[in-house]
Amino acid sequence: MPISQIAIGSPAEATRPDALKAGLAEFISMLIFVFAGEGSGMAFNKLTDSGSTTPAGLVAAALAHAFALFVAVAVGANISGGHVNPAVTFGAFIGGNITFFRTIVYWIAQLLGSVVACLLLKFATGGLETSAFSLSSGVTVWNALVFEIVMTFGLVYTVYATAVDPKKGNIGILAPIAIGFIVGANILAGGAFDGASMNPAVSFGPAVVSWSWSGHWVYWLGPFIGSAIAALVYDVIFIGSNSHEQLPTTDY
Amino acid sequence: MPISQIAIGSPAEATRPDALKAGLAEFISMLIFVFAGEGSGMAFNKLTDSGSTTPAGLVAAALAHAFALFVAVAVGANISGGHVNPAVTFGAFIGGNITFFRTIVYWIAQLLGSVVACLLLKFATGGLETSAFSLSSGVTVWNALVFEIVMTFGLVYTVYATAVDPKKGNIGILAPIAIGFIVGANILAGGAFDGASMNPAVSFGPAVVSWSWSGHWVYWLGPFIGSAIAALVYDVIFIGSNSHEQLPTTDY
Amino acid sequence: MPISQIAIGSPAEATRPDALKAGLAEFISMLIFVFAGEGSGMAFNKLTDSGSTTPAGLVAAALAHAFALFVAVAVGANISGGHVNPAVTFGAFIGGNITFFRTIVYWIAQLLGSVVACLLLKFATGGLETSAFSLSSGVTVWNALVFEIVMTFGLVYTVYATAVDPKKGNIGILAPIAIGFIVGANILAGGAFDGASMNPAVSFGPAVVSWSWSGHWVYWLGPFIGSAIAALVYDVIFIGSNSHEQLPTTDY
Amino acid sequence: MPISQIAIGSPAEATRPDALKAGLAEFISMLIFVFAGEGSGMAFNKLTDSGSTTPAGLVAAALAHAFALFVAVAVGANISGGHVNPAVTFGAFIGGNITFFRTIVYWIAQLLGSVVACLLLKFATGGLETSAFSLSSGVTVWNALVFEIVMTFGLVYTVYATAVDPKKGNIGILAPIAIGFIVGANILAGGAFDGASMNPAVSFGPAVVSWSWSGHWVYWLGPFIGSAIAALVYDVIFIGSNSHEQLPTTDY
Repeated sequence: MPISQIAIGSPAEATRPDALKAGLAEFISMLIFVFAGEGSGMAFNKLTDSGSTTPAGLVAAALAHAFALFVAVAVGANISGGHVNPAVTFGAFIGGNITFFRTIVYWIAQLLGSVVACLLLKFATGGLETSAFSLSSGVTVWNALVFEIVMTFGLVYTVYATAVDPKKGNIGILAPIAIGFIVGANILAGGAFDGASMNPAVSFGPAVVSWSWSGHWVYWLGPFIGSAIAALVYDVIFIGSNSHEQLPTTDY
Repeated sequence: MPISQIAIGSPAEATRPDALKAGLAEFISMLIFVFAGEGSGMAFNKLTDSGSTTPAGLVAAALAHAFALFVAVAVGANISGGHVNPAVTFGAFIGGNITFFRTIVYWIAQLLGSVVACLLLKFATGGLETSAFSLSSGVTVWNALVFEIVMTFGLVYTVYATAVDPKKGNIGILAPIAIGFIVGANILAGGAFDGASMNPAVSFGPAVVSWSWSGHWVYWLGPFIGSAIAALVYDVIFIGSNSHEQLPTTDY
Repeated sequence: MPISQIAIGSPAEATRPDALKAGLAEFISMLIFVFAGEGSGMAFNKLTDSGSTTPAGLVAAALAHAFALFVAVAVGANISGGHVNPAVTFGAFIGGNITFFRTIVYWIAQLLGSVVACLLLKFATGGLETSAFSLSSGVTVWNALVFEIVMTFGLVYTVYATAVDPKKGNIGILAPIAIGFIVGANILAGGAFDGASMNPAVSFGPAVVSWSWSGHWVYWLGPFIGSAIAALVYDVIFIGSNSHEQLPTTDY
Repeated sequence: MPISQIAIGSPAEATRPDALKAGLAEFISMLIFVFAGEGSGMAFNKLTDSGSTTPAGLVAAALAHAFALFVAVAVGANISGGHVNPAVTFGAFIGGNITFFRTIVYWIAQLLGSVVACLLLKFATGGLETSAFSLSSGVTVWNALVFEIVMTFGLVYTVYATAVDPKKGNIGILAPIAIGFIVGANILAGGAFDGASMNPAVSFGPAVVSWSWSGHWVYWLGPFIGSAIAALVYDVIFIGSNSHEQLPTTDY
């Protein structure tokens, strides 16, 4: 049972220098990611006078998120593991790869990074709105919930297959590219329906700065469910309990 | 003669745990791939009220398929070999790299993965149609057949050169990128004429869920012919019979 | 003097099995590359009723060529070195890395591959024109010549830095990506002015099949000049004569 | 204190053969980068009769810069370290990884490379304007300064994490991709507001050739501030003073 692998750790751990460094790395990676990703949406609004999304706009959003997430994961990999996503950290926690207290440090750092990126964007764009994630017309919260569950399942399954599975080879380049590309691909599908967040922190920053919370819970519940399913499936079926000794705690 | 290399295996093999795990991996990889790929087409229809394909729409489709197939191959590589395509599995069978019974397991898993992805898309989009692959106006089935043969030849030739050939180096990153990119490139050419499937499972899911089978056979016959030609050419001319002992059975 | 390194070889060499295999590999790589690249231009004409090039169309052309050339180089790398370009083969000859007779084999294979790709495209598209490369309005042959010289200089300099230089590391993935991306980047610049060929074979196939030769010489002279400059600069200044023993003859 | 690590070197060093070779490599890499990057902007103006930037135009600019910068870094990596950016060279100087006199050689080479690329573009396009970087309507110099600081922080942080940090693995492929992609991602955000330079040389060439200097200082001050912050943060917090012996002087 993977549940037996869950690690609590101690509060003291959260203030150890390496945990704080990892938190800083998550903060900076998230800031870089959200600045480019949310910024690309604001650029679209600037160029089109906040027009409706077009296929070219979706391509721009997908590339901005794919490229920036690749970078955010790659630059954090050696320090924090490069989660850059509370749902990924949750999946790592479910799979027993990170302690509870370290999880809290990561979550705070990730949410702060997103908020600071949006504040910087608001200033740098001369006060444009940091548009919150929302549902397109004709899309219900249940539709969006399924989108977020399936897309985040794909993302966290990718994290497990390329960065956690002991059978993986060198993660140096494969994992960050795969993680960036699955998010880019999913945005080209789900972006037209619910914004395709797959990441509670990515939705949190714009929601705070524009203070709009309509349907916001979908962008937390969906990713957490999708992440938990992916972590359990991969962990139980493809890794198995016997090889767990080899898993690194933080450096995935 | 490569035909002498064809392996039948035994029915029992198809129910062994590793074959079932490989089947599950193919199912999940195909689900991830079709969800993003077919989903990007439905996003285009959503954004344009089902307008005609544009160059920007073709770019979106090409990137969604290239990125998602890269991921689908990469995450499956260590478990099932990451075929994610009945025609690729067929090419592996023709070249003697996978048994007949394992081939059947893969095909069932791939087709199911595509159907489940389309059902999820149908629900998540609030009931939008999962458009089946079809011929553009002015394109005959013979035109499309040539497109599918040539494009799938390129795809399976790429699989052989980057993932099967014993002279290949580390396949960790080169093979999945090359496989994703050749599909993306071919979509930018053939997508405007016949949808550029190169993959019977990719066409099968939307056809089942939208129940439209016009010209569907082209998307099976073309890829199988192209795959067989590529497998035979690469196997006979570039690998040769003498180095066959070294070929792994499943892990390409 | 690099000129002293030029190797003639013997006519017999051109018919040796490994030279013929290398020629076949160049033929297939070029077919794959031109089918996607030229096909993407024909797709644009199909979708826009042969409208003027747009930024989205340029993006489609750049991605099709970048992705397909990456693949064409990667799949040929272990067999022929993956030149996929008569100007690259010329640069390799100038630098003493390939014999004269083998150069002839490569050139014939490359030109044939491009012609066959265009014939397949003409049939598969139901007879659409395989548009030849040409100059945009307001662009003189001298403008285009400079474009082709500078862009091909960049391409062949990239080949030397990532695939020939003994200081290079593992070429498995860096060289094909760099070669694909420099062509994609240059198309986004030069594509609007002269089509951005950088490759005589890429221009030759469409010219033969559509039988239009206006300004065609520019697409030979420009790439050959640019390639020669890059080969000489890189070879003389950055490699130096002392390290030449280590250069592989064919496997770059 | 990293300031104690700053190295002056001697003027003689700047004329040593390896410094001159490194300067030539920076000159050529910058020429390749600016030719494609600035050229893609001129192509947009050609195709749209100098129309307003569109999302598709932003995608074209982002891909041209991302692909070409990847190549420019990759081809220079073994000779000069592949800075291709005065702000990156400044960050390397701040972190004690390059001497003052070598810094001067690099800066001159980079600025010259950009100017020559723009002169070649002006001729090859038949005299089109090499548009200088400028602020969009509604964007103040303070807005733009923040954009350039944050974006260049992300770029130089990426350089440190993937190419300088002793914990990094093989830099062969990860560093140039990450550096190219962070610039591409940031262009998709900042490009609509201030052109997203992150690189004084990229702004300098077009300013010289079109002789327009309005707000030009922003494109120097912003990148230098962002680079210095990134270098200090990464150096002090994530590398620490104890591991500095291992840092290569030029080969990052």
